[in-house]
Amino acid sequence: MRILITGGAGFLGARLAREILKRGQLNGQSVSELVIADLFPAPADLLSDPRVKGHAGPMLEQGNLFKSGFDGVFHLASAVSGECELDFDLGLRSNVDSSRLLLDSIRASGKASRLVFASSVAVFGPDIGNPMPDLVTDTTLPTPQTSYGTHKLMIEHMVSDYTRKGYIDGRSARLMTVAVRPGKPNGAASSFFSGIIREPLAGVDAVCPVDASVSHPLSSPGNTIHGLITVFEASREAVGGRMALNLPGLNVTVGQMLDALEKVAGPAVRARVKFERDERVAGIVANWSRGSTSERANALGLKAESNFEAIIAQYIEDCQTRPGYPADALKGLN
Amino acid sequence: MRILITGGAGFLGARLAREILKRGQLNGQSVSELVIADLFPAPADLLSDPRVKGHAGPMLEQGNLFKSGFDGVFHLASAVSGECELDFDLGLRSNVDSSRLLLDSIRASGKASRLVFASSVAVFGPDIGNPMPDLVTDTTLPTPQTSYGTHKLMIEHMVSDYTRKGYIDGRSARLMTVAVRPGKPNGAASSFFSGIIREPLAGVDAVCPVDASVSHPLSSPGNTIHGLITVFEASREAVGGRMALNLPGLNVTVGQMLDALEKVAGPAVRARVKFERDERVAGIVANWSRGSTSERANALGLKAESNFEAIIAQYIEDCQTRPGYPADALKGLN
Repeated sequence: MRILITGGAGFLGARLAREILKRGQLNGQSVSELVIADLFPAPADLLSDPRVKGHAGPMLEQGNLFKSGFDGVFHLASAVSGECELDFDLGLRSNVDSSRLLLDSIRASGKASRLVFASSVAVFGPDIGNPMPDLVTDTTLPTPQTSYGTHKLMIEHMVSDYTRKGYIDGRSARLMTVAVRPGKPNGAASSFFSGIIREPLAGVDAVCPVDASVSHPLSSPGNTIHGLITVFEASREAVGGRMALNLPGLNVTVGQMLDALEKVAGPAVRARVKFERDERVAGIVANWSRGSTSERANALGLKAESNFEAIIAQYIEDCQTRPGYPADALKGLN
Repeated sequence: MRILITGGAGFLGARLAREILKRGQLNGQSVSELVIADLFPAPADLLSDPRVKGHAGPMLEQGNLFKSGFDGVFHLASAVSGECELDFDLGLRSNVDSSRLLLDSIRASGKASRLVFASSVAVFGPDIGNPMPDLVTDTTLPTPQTSYGTHKLMIEHMVSDYTRKGYIDGRSARLMTVAVRPGKPNGAASSFFSGIIREPLAGVDAVCPVDASVSHPLSSPGNTIHGLITVFEASREAVGGRMALNLPGLNVTVGQMLDALEKVAGPAVRARVKFERDERVAGIVANWSRGSTSERANALGLKAESNFEAIIAQYIEDCQTRPGYPADALKGLN
C-alpha cells in the first residue's frame, strides 16, 4: 500500500505516521511507502525509515505528487484557527484550495483512494436561532463561528460529494480538542487546555484564563490517532453514511482536569495553576462545544478515555518514551 | 444605488431586474445603475433601459467588474442540478469558483455590499442517519445528495463567514422549486412540476412521471422574487442570524396541482395530463423535500401562496402581460 499523510510533519501527523510504520499495515495490507507532505520537513526519525518519503512545501505546489496514485490518504494539513482569523486569504488557500487540489488530484489519478479527512469540533458554534446544545452529536446542525470551522465544514461536504461520485472513498472524522500537547504555550485560545497540565508537570506556573466550570470535549493524542486509523480501516457501510462523524471526546470541566492532575501528581503540582480570567479567551471559549457524543464512532468500537487521569498518564508516558518531548517535561513531578 | 444581478439574463434574474427597475429603488434609495452579468446577453427590454448595463460572459472573467464597487448584489448565477451531475468540473467552476471570485472581488472593492445569495431547497437530502423530515425547516441539517446542493451549501457557509468578517453584508435565501416556468420541457428532473400545468394550458399533452401523491414545496416566480427583494431590504437583525433561511413554499401534491388546474381551466385541460411513471425521475424526486417551513422568512412578512390556483393564475397573467412568454401559451384555454 502507498499511503499519503498531509500535515504529516505536525504533532498529530507525525504520531500517525509513527503508528502506521509500527503497525506496518492497514486493513491487513502491508504499507510499502508512506509519503509525508507538509509545509515543514518531517522529523528525522520518520525520514530515516526506508518506507518514508518526505515532501516539504506548500500543498498547493504538490499537485503532481497528489496525482501519483495512493491507496490511502490521511488529510490532516490545515492552517489553524488563529491563523485563519488573522489572515483570511491564507486560511482559504491553506484549507479550502489545498483540499480541493488534493481531491481533484486523487480524482485525476483514477484511483478512488480511501481518504480520511481530519475535520474538527470547530464546525460547531452557537448562532442566532441555533444555540449550542449541551452535547454536539453527529447530527447537530453545524453553524461555525470561525473561518477555520467554516473551511472544515466546506471540505466535509466536498469529501462527501467526491465520494458520492466515486472519485474517492472518503470519510470525515471530527477531531475533538487534543490534549495534552507538548511544547510551549502559544496564542491559540485553546492553548490552556494543555498548558494547565503540561506546565505544572514541568515545574512551571500556569495561568488558567477561564472558570473551573468550563467544560469541553477532549481526547488524548493516542486516542485521536486510534480514531483516525479505525475510521480509515472501516468499511463504507460500517462508517454509516457520507456525513462527517464525531470522534469520541471526554467531556470534562477544567475543575475535573485539575482534580485529575492532583490525583496523578499531587497537590503541589496542582497548586502551580492560578486562575486569572482573560475575558478575550473566555469569550472565545464560551462559543465552543461544552461536550460531544459520538454514536457512529462508538459503533466502530471507538470510545473516549474514561477519565482525565488516563489522558495525563498518557502524556507522562509520552514524555518518557517518545521523540519530540523535552527532557525536562516532568521536572515538576517528584 | 449601483446594483449587480449575477444570472440576470435568466428567467428569475430577468424578472428580478424588471421588478427592481419598476420599483426604481431598494430600501428607499434610488437605483441609478443595474448591472446584469450573465453567461448570455440580457433580454432586449432590459438592455433598452438606460439604467441597465449588460455584461455577457463567464463569471470567472468578470473579476474587474465585480471589483468595481456595488451597493447591492443579487447572486443568482449558477450551473443547474443536471449540468453539475453531468459535468463535475463545470459545476465546481460555475458555482463554487465563480462565487468565490465574486465574494473576493466585493471584499477587494472595500465596499461591504449587501448581498443576497440564491441558495436552494436542494441543500436538503436524505442521508443514512439523517432521514428527510416531512418538512425541512430553517434548522434542518442539510446533507445534500447532488453536487448542485453541495455547492449551494458550501457557498451559504462562505457567505456567512465573509459576512462575519465584515467583508460583505450577506444573507442566503433558499429558493423553493419555482413553478410555473415558461418554455419547453427539459431534461431536468423537476421539469414536470411546471410541465404538467404549462403544456395542458397550451393545448399540449403532458406526461407526469411520478405518482399523484408526490409532495413538494413550490413557489411562483413572483413570490420568489418578492422573497429575494424582501431579504435584501431586511436589516441584519431582522434576517435573524447568518444562517441561510428558507423562502416560503406551498407544500402541495401533484394531485392537488391537477385539481387546481381543473378548477382554473376545466376538466378537458386536466385530462391532457397522463401518468406514466418514469423510474429514473421518480427515484430522483424521492430524495427531494416533501415540504418546507420558513419561520424566519415568515417573520419578515413573507408567506407562501395560499393555494396552487393562485400560482396558476399568476402564470396565466404572466402569459398575457410579460415578455418571454410565447403567444400560444394559453391555446388550450377556451
